[in-house]
Amino acid sequence: MTVVLYDSAVSGNCYKVRLLFALLGVEYERQPLSVVDKSDREEVLGGLNPGLRVPTVVLDDGRPLGESGAILWYFADGTHYVPSDSYDRAELLQWMFFEQYSHEPYVATPRYIAKHLPADHARRAELPARLATGRAALAVMDSHLKSRQFFVGERYSIADIALYAYTHVAHEGGHDLTPYAAVRSWLVRVAAQPGNVSIYARPRG
Amino acid sequence: MTVVLYDSAVSGNCYKVRLLFALLGVEYERQPLSVVDKSDREEVLGGLNPGLRVPTVVLDDGRPLGESGAILWYFADGTHYVPSDSYDRAELLQWMFFEQYSHEPYVATPRYIAKHLPADHARRAELPARLATGRAALAVMDSHLKSRQFFVGERYSIADIALYAYTHVAHEGGHDLTPYAAVRSWLVRVAAQPGNVSIYARPRG
Repeated sequence: MTVVLYDSAVSGNCYKVRLLFALLGVEYERQPLSVVDKSDREEVLGGLNPGLRVPTVVLDDGRPLGESGAILWYFADGTHYVPSDSYDRAELLQWMFFEQYSHEPYVATPRYIAKHLPADHARRAELPARLATGRAALAVMDSHLKSRQFFVGERYSIADIALYAYTHVAHEGGHDLTPYAAVRSWLVRVAAQPGNVSIYARPRG
Repeated sequence: MTVVLYDSAVSGNCYKVRLLFALLGVEYERQPLSVVDKSDREEVLGGLNPGLRVPTVVLDDGRPLGESGAILWYFADGTHYVPSDSYDRAELLQWMFFEQYSHEPYVATPRYIAKHLPADHARRAELPARLATGRAALAVMDSHLKSRQFFVGERYSIADIALYAYTHVAHEGGHDLTPYAAVRSWLVRVAAQPGNVSIYARPRG
């Protein structure tokens, strides 16, 4: 069996998995799902991921796995994208939890609202508050990166992949990265990693 | 040096760490911080946790660590609170990311608004939408627990600790757990674990 990725081409959470799979050379079959019309989620993902979210992966032995951070960890642990030192591993998880709790709702969700919902959608009213909190998250990243090349252990890891996914398209949600010079330098470093693919690369499969 | 926990007595995220420390017998010094008046955060946590959030831990070698999930992982990995099988470990992280992204803002935040902000605070307007999304998260947990004793590998783990922290006080934010029989049975099982301490146990230190 081949690994199956239930995927959305526009979701940064799914892109994290596609990027890691590209870096590791994981062969997979792509099953595209919409992030706007979710009416088929129960039917498609009901038995695989109780949260009905993408990305969801079915491993080559048939076992399912959800949540981008868990999928990244499963495939990257044991490679040089996850450090071996126990403190570095915890620090990597610190940044991945930061991304999901303090960054994604305020950097990714504005992009979703601005780009994928109709121009007159009521959720546009959320944008100013979400962008303000997102700026705080970007400032935290910038402060950390001022003296570092990458988030953990001076080495490109899945913490960088997790934070890169939505930060490099943050402008699509209305964020201006001009004030965050260290973040901008880091985005260039990540994009220059051998094997990097864009979120807009035509997905395989 | 002793482990230091920057802590809030009312924060479920901090309680997760206190509960694990109690189970593992970790000695620690407690530094209480307010979750309402955060004016001292930069001064106290600025050099330790760029997100300025509690819990933050300083290890016995002086290195800091933030984010409850990362702290739980650091102290529990290698004990029976984190499984050794690679798939089980990823599934554990799946539930811990689910908790931070899909559960905490909709189960914990209503409690924060209802219990810790003034009765006329503008954020009360958020409660109906947050509670509705929280009910979806509780339904996901209930569905998973219908055929299981614990979240991962039929064994009490830090995934249970992470989800227990705010679920067992969800009623304080306005949630009614009556419809979620499997969740209620699981809460009883977790509370019955040897060494369990309540979120309202007088913190040490």
